[in-house]
Amino acid sequence: MPAHLTREARATDAGATPGKNGAMRYRVECELGYEVLASGGAPFVFNIEAQRGPGQEVVEEELTLSQDLPFDRFTMPESGNRYFRVLAGRGGLTVRYRAVVDLAPRRAAPASVREMPVGRVPLEVLTHLYPSRYAESDLLQRFARREFGHLPPGHGRVAAVCNWLHDNIEYAAGSSDEHTSARDTLLQRRGVCRDFAHLAIAFCRALGIPARFVSAYAWRLSPPDFHAVVEAWLEGPEGGAWFLFDPTRKAAADGLVRIGVGRDAAEVAFCSPWGAAECGVPKVGIQALDRPGDAASTTEAVTVAAA
Amino acid sequence: MPAHLTREARATDAGATPGKNGAMRYRVECELGYEVLASGGAPFVFNIEAQRGPGQEVVEEELTLSQDLPFDRFTMPESGNRYFRVLAGRGGLTVRYRAVVDLAPRRAAPASVREMPVGRVPLEVLTHLYPSRYAESDLLQRFARREFGHLPPGHGRVAAVCNWLHDNIEYAAGSSDEHTSARDTLLQRRGVCRDFAHLAIAFCRALGIPARFVSAYAWRLSPPDFHAVVEAWLEGPEGGAWFLFDPTRKAAADGLVRIGVGRDAAEVAFCSPWGAAECGVPKVGIQALDRPGDAASTTEAVTVAAA
Amino acid sequence: MPAHLTREARATDAGATPGKNGAMRYRVECELGYEVLASGGAPFVFNIEAQRGPGQEVVEEELTLSQDLPFDRFTMPESGNRYFRVLAGRGGLTVRYRAVVDLAPRRAAPASVREMPVGRVPLEVLTHLYPSRYAESDLLQRFARREFGHLPPGHGRVAAVCNWLHDNIEYAAGSSDEHTSARDTLLQRRGVCRDFAHLAIAFCRALGIPARFVSAYAWRLSPPDFHAVVEAWLEGPEGGAWFLFDPTRKAAADGLVRIGVGRDAAEVAFCSPWGAAECGVPKVGIQALDRPGDAASTTEAVTVAAA
Amino acid sequence: MPAHLTREARATDAGATPGKNGAMRYRVECELGYEVLASGGAPFVFNIEAQRGPGQEVVEEELTLSQDLPFDRFTMPESGNRYFRVLAGRGGLTVRYRAVVDLAPRRAAPASVREMPVGRVPLEVLTHLYPSRYAESDLLQRFARREFGHLPPGHGRVAAVCNWLHDNIEYAAGSSDEHTSARDTLLQRRGVCRDFAHLAIAFCRALGIPARFVSAYAWRLSPPDFHAVVEAWLEGPEGGAWFLFDPTRKAAADGLVRIGVGRDAAEVAFCSPWGAAECGVPKVGIQALDRPGDAASTTEAVTVAAA
Repeated sequence: MPAHLTREARATDAGATPGKNGAMRYRVECELGYEVLASGGAPFVFNIEAQRGPGQEVVEEELTLSQDLPFDRFTMPESGNRYFRVLAGRGGLTVRYRAVVDLAPRRAAPASVREMPVGRVPLEVLTHLYPSRYAESDLLQRFARREFGHLPPGHGRVAAVCNWLHDNIEYAAGSSDEHTSARDTLLQRRGVCRDFAHLAIAFCRALGIPARFVSAYAWRLSPPDFHAVVEAWLEGPEGGAWFLFDPTRKAAADGLVRIGVGRDAAEVAFCSPWGAAECGVPKVGIQALDRPGDAASTTEAVTVAAA
Repeated sequence: MPAHLTREARATDAGATPGKNGAMRYRVECELGYEVLASGGAPFVFNIEAQRGPGQEVVEEELTLSQDLPFDRFTMPESGNRYFRVLAGRGGLTVRYRAVVDLAPRRAAPASVREMPVGRVPLEVLTHLYPSRYAESDLLQRFARREFGHLPPGHGRVAAVCNWLHDNIEYAAGSSDEHTSARDTLLQRRGVCRDFAHLAIAFCRALGIPARFVSAYAWRLSPPDFHAVVEAWLEGPEGGAWFLFDPTRKAAADGLVRIGVGRDAAEVAFCSPWGAAECGVPKVGIQALDRPGDAASTTEAVTVAAA
Repeated sequence: MPAHLTREARATDAGATPGKNGAMRYRVECELGYEVLASGGAPFVFNIEAQRGPGQEVVEEELTLSQDLPFDRFTMPESGNRYFRVLAGRGGLTVRYRAVVDLAPRRAAPASVREMPVGRVPLEVLTHLYPSRYAESDLLQRFARREFGHLPPGHGRVAAVCNWLHDNIEYAAGSSDEHTSARDTLLQRRGVCRDFAHLAIAFCRALGIPARFVSAYAWRLSPPDFHAVVEAWLEGPEGGAWFLFDPTRKAAADGLVRIGVGRDAAEVAFCSPWGAAECGVPKVGIQALDRPGDAASTTEAVTVAAA
Repeated sequence: MPAHLTREARATDAGATPGKNGAMRYRVECELGYEVLASGGAPFVFNIEAQRGPGQEVVEEELTLSQDLPFDRFTMPESGNRYFRVLAGRGGLTVRYRAVVDLAPRRAAPASVREMPVGRVPLEVLTHLYPSRYAESDLLQRFARREFGHLPPGHGRVAAVCNWLHDNIEYAAGSSDEHTSARDTLLQRRGVCRDFAHLAIAFCRALGIPARFVSAYAWRLSPPDFHAVVEAWLEGPEGGAWFLFDPTRKAAADGLVRIGVGRDAAEVAFCSPWGAAECGVPKVGIQALDRPGDAASTTEAVTVAAA
């Protein structure tokens, strides 16, 4: 009998209720299927649950496994990422997650959002200036300075980085793999959302702007899938915050239900199996239950996360 | 007049007193000199102070700057790394650190230290299985499995990784730079302590063993300098812990006063200046004030850090 | 009506006649199919015809194209490679080649084959000491010297390089692509014949032994396909010559009908289309019409080509 | 006593006589010094002598070695490169070369110089479409097509490639080493003449334009040194030819006395020592003995070499 891990469900009247206080309300869901081949089974680590925090409230959620399995959880303090691990036996494994999430992002006029001098960036944020596996900012220093060094610092410069990617990198499904990094993408001039995010992150760090990788459920992303976007640490009217950017232009910054944040994709895989397993294609969905306006993009600077 | 940041000094009779409870007592020190060229000055982030924790006690310490400068501190919760930032003005900057540290490492017979199955590794430790900038374990999967996959798992397998490095990689001062990563070292077959550590870490992760980079004051390291070694997450008689390894064989695992731990060198640079500056050669020292025995190496498995 | 380019056919009684003077006689054939998509057609350059030279005599051959097309030929003086170019129109293109070839390789006891000091290597051969696109010998100097530098120079050292590849690199169909080079193969520890050849070549050059890439019809290769092997410039009892090696151990050195030689695969592609085209799977065949003995391998040193 | 290898000197009245038929006359010279450390001596291969051919005539030349040494020569038929090899004994070795060379380049209006379709490029030239060690055109296909694919084909497109390099790559002495290749330069955005040439070559090949590396004595190069430029195969009013380009803009295309041509720098090193030796800084000089006009650059398309 399937295990229903519904302890997290906080409400039963989900979905229809509008988001409170002007928040936008989204329903998100995914279904992941695996065939575990390893005879002794295999541990799986998942990061598919929506983050909880000031600008993103999980109203209701339900996690279901197809087997009654040993299971443990961990919310990473420095990121808020919610990981769970399943010790799956041999055979089929299905994981389903459904949630209703309210987003109340802070918005600001882009011109009011500045870069923060390194001398004032909180020390716990500085780690996002360092190069990581898939965002080798140390190798792209001169490239970044030549292309973007002369631009006025601020939200507009990160937007310029994203615009450059849109103009110079072709979005091509299947054109990269799990080893592809920012330097590869810059040479090969094509990639998927993961690659766009890595290259934008590498450019930001090379410019002295802390940046990190965000996995998300993205409203109106077509075709539906997990999405990857970027957060850059900037200083808005209310102080330092992580501002959202999508260099693929496939999703609106205020239509992102954030799952995991990290240095790069290495840290926020939605599923890491540790043993032989066949993976099905993930089914991912997101609906706006209550969202003012219809635009899939926004000209505002958007932030959900503080340090 | 120089600023004496001596708030941390906990004792005045330092040094002569033997380590308590059989601990080994070391005096460590470093002096770092810079010439700041940027007209507006530059922020510097340092990570030179000894970690504080169960097996490593800071008995006394003193940090001195040559200028009275804006200064802030941060101890990273997930690592225990102690960072401080200085906003240096144009001109000379000297940083001095002196400490007396007691080490009381836990020791175990290597044969009693096992690998921990991924299904039981604490989720907060799992992040050290992911590839990082300078330890691209994803690229070295087959190499690692071919060389080390057939060996019996445990402390001995990590030791075998270190032995392989000793036998196959030439230690050559000046042979690498700040962009050199594990894959480069594996091809070029030479490097310095930083490179040895990165390659050992990459191999461990590729084998499913969490591993991280450690910067340290290393007793009897010749010539004296900051050292880089490796910690692998293994399971000793008292449970999971980070066990120390030095693939360069230049220092004893029980003679290491740990400074910073991280995914790789990107996270634990002893100094990161953010602006134009000339860096002098660091002066680094370590003396054993009280240490039983004279051997610069040990055949025991050694651990200081829990998760 | 198909064009029959049979001007090269030198005999009509082919096949049944035994090779003269103790030569081994082979029949080789290939059939290549393409669908040209470019509306204006596309030029194709082929290198599929057997080389002609002292130790390899083409007794009879026939080249057939499915269309009557503009066609030109070039035999590269420095390599003996026989290229032809076809200006194919839109639609289907089929190329068939059949030949009967006598091989009369020189053989020598491996122990009698020495390395030739660089000071005596003919200057026109020295070019094969330089690094090339897929055999980056400059990057593998230390690796090669560490693994093979201590071995006695000669045929046995090149054989040791090939043995190392056999023991350390997994042969895995589909595991590499047209961008894969020796350094990639060395890290990833798997590849196909092309990759084995590139890595062996890079090691030889790094050791000061001129080496080049050879494409060939290979007797008993399973499954049948174009094969890639290595020639190293060594000094046998009769002087300097290119000695054949197959680091995959899939074919006998005396069962190779050589097609193209070059610095690496970039120069001897069996087909280079310059325009949009779909490529079918090549059909390749080789039969021994007259071959003493049955062994698919040989312990002798084998050479066909002089400088 | 020094050996004077003056057999090549063809005239004694050199230098003062003006170039015939409107040719420009240059005096070139270099002096190279080495300290051979290998106890048994070491072979050296040099490529410092001016090419001989239709548009470049060597009027007079003299080659001098500081020792009377075993010596042999080779002119590579496919390139015209003139190599000589010296078996140097332990100790000092000095090589001096002086020549008077007449250049009679063909000139054409850039707009009259077209790209030649691959179907018509001579087959012996096609080899310069393949990727080579330092010009990995296979990796830069999309980059090249995105940046230059939309430009009208012809001399102007190669000039546009060179202009892009001038605008995007910083010329910085000492910023690269002998392992640096086009992909590195594209990421790091700086280099020396060798790197500019490699990247321009890689872009041309990726666009379907055969291109090769040229080492040269370059009039008015400052500081004086061996120079590296590019030849692209294009079709002028008189047919296909190799047209000269200098992406560094440091020398005029009609002020280049060509030494070696090849796939890339691997083939035309001015000196390759095979053994331990210390190399002094080469002294290189070039003077115009008879040159109409004073301009160090030209707006004409310039070619010296046919296929």
